[in-house]
Parts: sequence; structure tokens; C-alpha cells
Amino acid sequence: MKIPNFADIRAAKARISSFVHTTPLLTNNTINSISGAEIHFKCENFQKVGAFKFRGACNSVFALDDNSAAKGVATHSSGNHAQALALAAKMRGIPATIVMPNNSPQVKKDAVAGYGADIVFCKPTLEARESTLEQVIAEKGHTFIHPYDNFNVICGQGTAALEIFELSSEFEAIIAPVGGGGLLSGTAITAKSQKPGIKVYAAEPEGADDAYRSFKAGKIIPSKNPDTICDGLLTSLGELNFEIISQYVDDIFTANDEEIKAAMRLIWERMKIIVEPSSAVPLAVVLTNKELFAGKKIAIILSGGNVDLGKLEF
Amino acid sequence: MKIPNFADIRAAKARISSFVHTTPLLTNNTINSISGAEIHFKCENFQKVGAFKFRGACNSVFALDDNSAAKGVATHSSGNHAQALALAAKMRGIPATIVMPNNSPQVKKDAVAGYGADIVFCKPTLEARESTLEQVIAEKGHTFIHPYDNFNVICGQGTAALEIFELSSEFEAIIAPVGGGGLLSGTAITAKSQKPGIKVYAAEPEGADDAYRSFKAGKIIPSKNPDTICDGLLTSLGELNFEIISQYVDDIFTANDEEIKAAMRLIWERMKIIVEPSSAVPLAVVLTNKELFAGKKIAIILSGGNVDLGKLEF
Repeated sequence: MKIPNFADIRAAKARISSFVHTTPLLTNNTINSISGAEIHFKCENFQKVGAFKFRGACNSVFALDDNSAAKGVATHSSGNHAQALALAAKMRGIPATIVMPNNSPQVKKDAVAGYGADIVFCKPTLEARESTLEQVIAEKGHTFIHPYDNFNVICGQGTAALEIFELSSEFEAIIAPVGGGGLLSGTAITAKSQKPGIKVYAAEPEGADDAYRSFKAGKIIPSKNPDTICDGLLTSLGELNFEIISQYVDDIFTANDEEIKAAMRLIWERMKIIVEPSSAVPLAVVLTNKELFAGKKIAIILSGGNVDLGKLEF
Repeated sequence: MKIPNFADIRAAKARISSFVHTTPLLTNNTINSISGAEIHFKCENFQKVGAFKFRGACNSVFALDDNSAAKGVATHSSGNHAQALALAAKMRGIPATIVMPNNSPQVKKDAVAGYGADIVFCKPTLEARESTLEQVIAEKGHTFIHPYDNFNVICGQGTAALEIFELSSEFEAIIAPVGGGGLLSGTAITAKSQKPGIKVYAAEPEGADDAYRSFKAGKIIPSKNPDTICDGLLTSLGELNFEIISQYVDDIFTANDEEIKAAMRLIWERMKIIVEPSSAVPLAVVLTNKELFAGKKIAIILSGGNVDLGKLEF
């Protein structure tokens, strides 16, 4: 299993920098007073398609040689990776097929279709997704771009942290949310290569704590019936991701949904920006472990801002 | 009646620049496609206290000579100006008294008190506000800082537009929401002095269209029983503001609450930022007058981001 190194992440940055947004790093005085730490938020909610996922998808698509690229790309996803891959393929001018569960929300189907990707529907089970995807690949010769257990995806996700270190190397800790581990593993490689002494922490919802349990057990323990408002963090750790996380991550903390909602509300109210629940887990972890972070300069990656506002009454 | 000129606004900028945030100017591809225009949003929702009001309050407080300043400042307001003045006074280390209606929401009382200002409650009528304020001023020797009908407040508000022109002078139109007219009049002076050919437009809710009617009639027609979700735009035009607006503003457009809500949702969903309803009126106006703005480079001032999120179910 080949683990990416920092040169791979630097190469990813060179490859995608004209396609992705360099997102801002924001601070907030009130949140600093409440937490007792100096927190710098990397705003991937402002990234294209509203999430860091676009970095990895973009790097995977543009890393393909011309022959493979011409045959297109495919994935199974109903989330941000689906839109990210569809947009990246559109930018390179190549076909993309997204396998989506037939019960996906209309707004997500529309978004993927809006980027010009083909959608193939399947039953809403992991087995159906995987078998349908295999069929698509066999028929069309597409390259499968896994949402997180993929070398180039991980390198792409690592470019968010790289932008942070390009602004300052004084951070004592960096915290990313963990679902499949794509963002966390890319972040960890970048952070430890840029500053070996930095602490790399993961933040995970209590109701989907497979990464926490896997990390402590030293082997992958798959997620079973996860239950959390963080719809972006339901998946189990990937193999390559677990390998990297075991090697580079210092610790994983969990927070419950009430703590996550309170942190999310704080970000909305005080920073006036919209983040999805998954993005708020790192701040929830800081606020429930204040003694650990007090007085420290910390970077937190806000992973995305895709919330269904249809439910809100204005 | 002395009207501020551009030198006054430049002086305001020099006076307040170490206290206010230089807010970002953001664009969004989707909103540009939908509108057919190239819109640059000046994000005063990211300003201190969450609204442009801090600029004017800050300029008024720091423009006082030491003797007057030592005696403190006062205003009547239950809105963003109350918090803005309280914070500005705190920064200069002088007393502030805010007259607030006794039915003000607890969260607003807490915010003002949190900045260390004294609060004097009164009955929720304009008469009670004014007479209570007079009493406070007579007793304490405070200087009254009117929320918008005030020379230095207008100069402070004009610094938001000045930051826009420091980035680019290529704008063909600039649009600000109008309530009392503080932001609009400062914006108009800056814009016309920086680029005489630019169009300066105001955007106003249909349910509180006193500025529209005053502008067309050539005299102030006070707001009567305004009814709109834009709680920041309920007041009538000030006298100094009307004078400036008559002279420098090209036109005033109105939008109804449904159009404003749709524009606000678009900003939340696509830009991932939180703005209050008042901020969305200019975009609503652009979207309902597409032919006028098609192909043009436009600046819109997002006036603030103070929304009661307590009502939202996460």
C-alpha cells in the first residue's frame, strides 16, 4: 500500500490550483474568548460545490493520463463527492457516471445532473451501489474514483492544510473531522511534514465513532448503524486512510450531537457563515476539552457548508 | 445643513481603520449566472457587531474631542446601532447610555449590556424613546449619536464603499439598502466622488417604501405602519440623509418580502454566508430588474448578518 508523501501533496496543489478556490482562514474574537484558544478556521464551506471534496475529486480527475481520462470516471455517492466528481469531470471535459441510491433527495440528483454527469440509480444498499458501479465500469471503461480510499483523493484533500501552512507555521494543533478519513489523512501528511511537532487530532461524532474505536483497537472496526446529524461522517474508515491515520494522527476525540449542534450554532451566529454539522465537530471537541487547547494556536478545517435550507422558515 | 464631502469620508476611514474590519468583497458564479450580472458583495455581515452600523458609531465616538468624549454618548435604539455605539464607546473607554424599549428581546439587551453600556428602559413608543433620551442627556451631559441623521455617522458608513473602490473602480452601479438612509447617503457620496458616472441605486422593501415615495415626491414622507421582514429598514429617512440622497442617488427600487426572502435564501445557499433580510433587498432588486443590470459589474452592500437563529431547528 503506497502512502502519499508531502511531494505528492505539493504536486496535487500545482495540478489543481487553477481549478479550486484558495479558501480564507478566519478567526472570531468571541469564539476565541469562549474557548480560551486562538482558533483559525479554514473555510472549505466556501470551496467549489461547497465542500473540501472538490479538491480530491479534482486532483484525481486531472491526474489521469489522457487515454484513461477520455474513458471517463465513475463513483457511487449521494453526497458531496458525487457533485465534486461531476464538476471536476466537466472541467476536464470528460464523461462521468455517478451511481446514486434511488431514494436520494431530488436536490442532490439535480445538482449532479446540473454538472452534466450521467446518473445511474440503484437500490439504497451498499451491495447494490457496489455491484451497479462494477457494471457501469465494465460497460463504459470508466476509472473508479473512490470518495476517500484513493491515493490522489487523499493528496487533493491535503492541499487544504497546505494552504493553512502557507499562511503560518505557528500552529500547535490542527483538527479535522473524520468520516472515511480522506480529509484527515491528507491533513495529517501535510501537517506532520510541515511541522513535525504539531498535534494532529481528529473529531468524530459519538454516534459514528468507528474511527475512534479503530484507532484505539489498532485495526479497522467498521461503522454499524451510525446515528448522528453529521450526514457527511457516516462511512467507515478506508484502508489507506487507516494506515495513514495510524501513523500520523495523535488522537481522536468524539462529541455528541448536542455538543455538535451548539458548536454549529456558535459558528453560524458569531461568524455569520453556514457550515454543515460535520464541520462543527472539531469546535465541539475543543469546547469539551478546553484544558487541552487553552492558550494554543489551533487550525480547524470547516469541511463544508451543504445544509438543506429547505427546512428553515425565514 | 452641512453635507459631508469625500474628504470627510477619507478622514473617517483614517480615524476608524484600526478599529473596524476591512470586510471582504465576494462573488458567486451561480448568482452571476442567475442574474446575468457580475455582482460583488461587500460583506458587512462580517463587520464588528455583525453590521455596517459599527463604522458610523465608531467614527462618531472617535471624532469627539476629549472633553465631550469624557462625558459619554447616548442613543435610542433596539437594533444594531445600539450595540455598535456601546462597543465603540467601550473601545474609547467612555460611558454610553442606550435608551431601549422595555419590550426589546433579551438577546439584544444582553448584547448591549455585554459591551458595558448602561441601559435605560422606556415605553415602546417613539415619543417615550425621545423624551427618555432627552432626560438622560440632560442628566449626564452625554452627546447624542443619532443612528443615521448625523454627519459623522454618515461619513463612517461611507467607508464601506470606499473599501470597495480601493479594490476596483470599474463598477457601473452600486446598490445599498435604505432605511433611515445612513448607509445609502455615505455610499452615494463616496461612489459619486470616486466615479462620477456610476449609478447609485437604493433598494427598499415594498412594505416600508417611504424613501421611494419621498424620493419621487421631492420631500420627506415619513414611514407609516411599515410591514416587512426587513426589521432593519423600518425607520423614516433622516433630513440630512434625504438631502444627500436627493442630490446623489440615481433611483430607488422596491422589492416585496417574497422576493427578498428568495434572494436571502440564494445568498445563504450559494454563498454559505448568513445575512439578515435587509441585506438581501439589493439582490432582490437586481433579480426583478434583470434587463437593467445584465452584463454590468455591480457592487452590492450586504448590510448585516444579525438574524435570530433561535427560531431555526437544526
